[in-house]
Amino acid sequence: MNHRNDTLLSDLVDVRNAQSTTPVVVVCEHASAHIPASFQNLGLPASALLSHVVWDPGAMALATKMADRLNAVLVASKTSRLVYDCNRPPEAPDAMPARSEVVDVPGNANLSDAQRAERAATYYAPFREALAATLQARTAPVLVTVHSFTPVYHGQARDVEIGILHDSDARLADAMLALTAQHTTCDTRRNAPYGPGDGVTHTLREHALPYGYLNVMLEIRNDLLADDTDQTAMAQTLSEWVSQALTQIEAETCNP
Amino acid sequence: MNHRNDTLLSDLVDVRNAQSTTPVVVVCEHASAHIPASFQNLGLPASALLSHVVWDPGAMALATKMADRLNAVLVASKTSRLVYDCNRPPEAPDAMPARSEVVDVPGNANLSDAQRAERAATYYAPFREALAATLQARTAPVLVTVHSFTPVYHGQARDVEIGILHDSDARLADAMLALTAQHTTCDTRRNAPYGPGDGVTHTLREHALPYGYLNVMLEIRNDLLADDTDQTAMAQTLSEWVSQALTQIEAETCNP
Repeated sequence: MNHRNDTLLSDLVDVRNAQSTTPVVVVCEHASAHIPASFQNLGLPASALLSHVVWDPGAMALATKMADRLNAVLVASKTSRLVYDCNRPPEAPDAMPARSEVVDVPGNANLSDAQRAERAATYYAPFREALAATLQARTAPVLVTVHSFTPVYHGQARDVEIGILHDSDARLADAMLALTAQHTTCDTRRNAPYGPGDGVTHTLREHALPYGYLNVMLEIRNDLLADDTDQTAMAQTLSEWVSQALTQIEAETCNP
Repeated sequence: MNHRNDTLLSDLVDVRNAQSTTPVVVVCEHASAHIPASFQNLGLPASALLSHVVWDPGAMALATKMADRLNAVLVASKTSRLVYDCNRPPEAPDAMPARSEVVDVPGNANLSDAQRAERAATYYAPFREALAATLQARTAPVLVTVHSFTPVYHGQARDVEIGILHDSDARLADAMLALTAQHTTCDTRRNAPYGPGDGVTHTLREHALPYGYLNVMLEIRNDLLADDTDQTAMAQTLSEWVSQALTQIEAETCNP
């Protein structure tokens, strides 16, 4: 047999609540710190191997709890963003970054085109395909991507606690931002600490914008996701917030 | 149930020989002249409805025969290129052209962003997803897209009979072109009558180039595909040609 899905897909992509038929599709591109053994830790020092440069700490726990609350399917990568960043297209240099924030990544230095293509084929294509199939199986799906960010970046403390990010389609982000005060006292901002100019809206651009699907990217400061209690509380907050925003958009669409 | 695949996918995408486990994936984006009734023929005159502006005449018959000969899977769109051109990304103006060669397409004039997104979601996303899944199910797939072109374009006769097209990865096209004399006496040219600068290599760019998969786009002048006998002969020629090129590439890879 020539099919690689049979043996490998479940090692590469986590699809949970696949039987869900609700429109929301939760995505976690940076869910995992796993670096396959053949990469020999990409030459990273031990101190970096569980840091935010390798994954988004807390994001997968949050995404899982949100998916459960929303009765939504969840699609997550099972490989570190440093092996392949599933929120970047294959042509982006930072899909396999040779440097991440202040950490050099020796295993990503001077990759050839063939090496980059092999990485993309092995670690990105299955994720992209699983997400496309998941969206395709739903009528009018809603894409919600879940990320976490580090409280200190390049030595600077960040005040923002929750970022509501969007690209050219701001419908869901706008609806959420308008409801902020009803859901959280956290410092919540639009397109912070990153925005579309930083290349972070790839998943939205690839899978939602061309097809008119409602979409939003959620960035949570990772000190707010430190333990299970925090993650559960944040999942409840965000799930109710997303749900209310969607209800409001639906109401406005029906009664313009 | 909220899943639209169950009822509609087979109306939108033709996947033949799905059980094949060979690496070649044959694609025919412009296989069909079908315009769903709700579009009221896109306002086209009857004379245009079976012309090359609506589909690639002969291409699906050729692609089907090639897939059968190569024991390869075939992925084809079942909707006219004028409803959605599956060889264009959603952001391309000519994905839903308001004018095609010398024919105005009233049903595509002044489409809103929402209308374009709805077209892409309905007619492109299922094709893209089926092709991505088909490629993903194979180790080192080889993408071969099959097109036909009109002998007279904007009033000019075309001498080229077979075009071997490629984008930045010319491996398979180079191998085929080097073997031309062994397979055909047709006027065969590289990147003719179109080339990557005309935006026609979208499928290659979307599904093959980022992942390093061998790929080629074949353009056959449609007067060479006029009947079943011609189509069978051309399918035999091209299948043997592609197979020999792949064998040669494999041999060179093993014995550099």
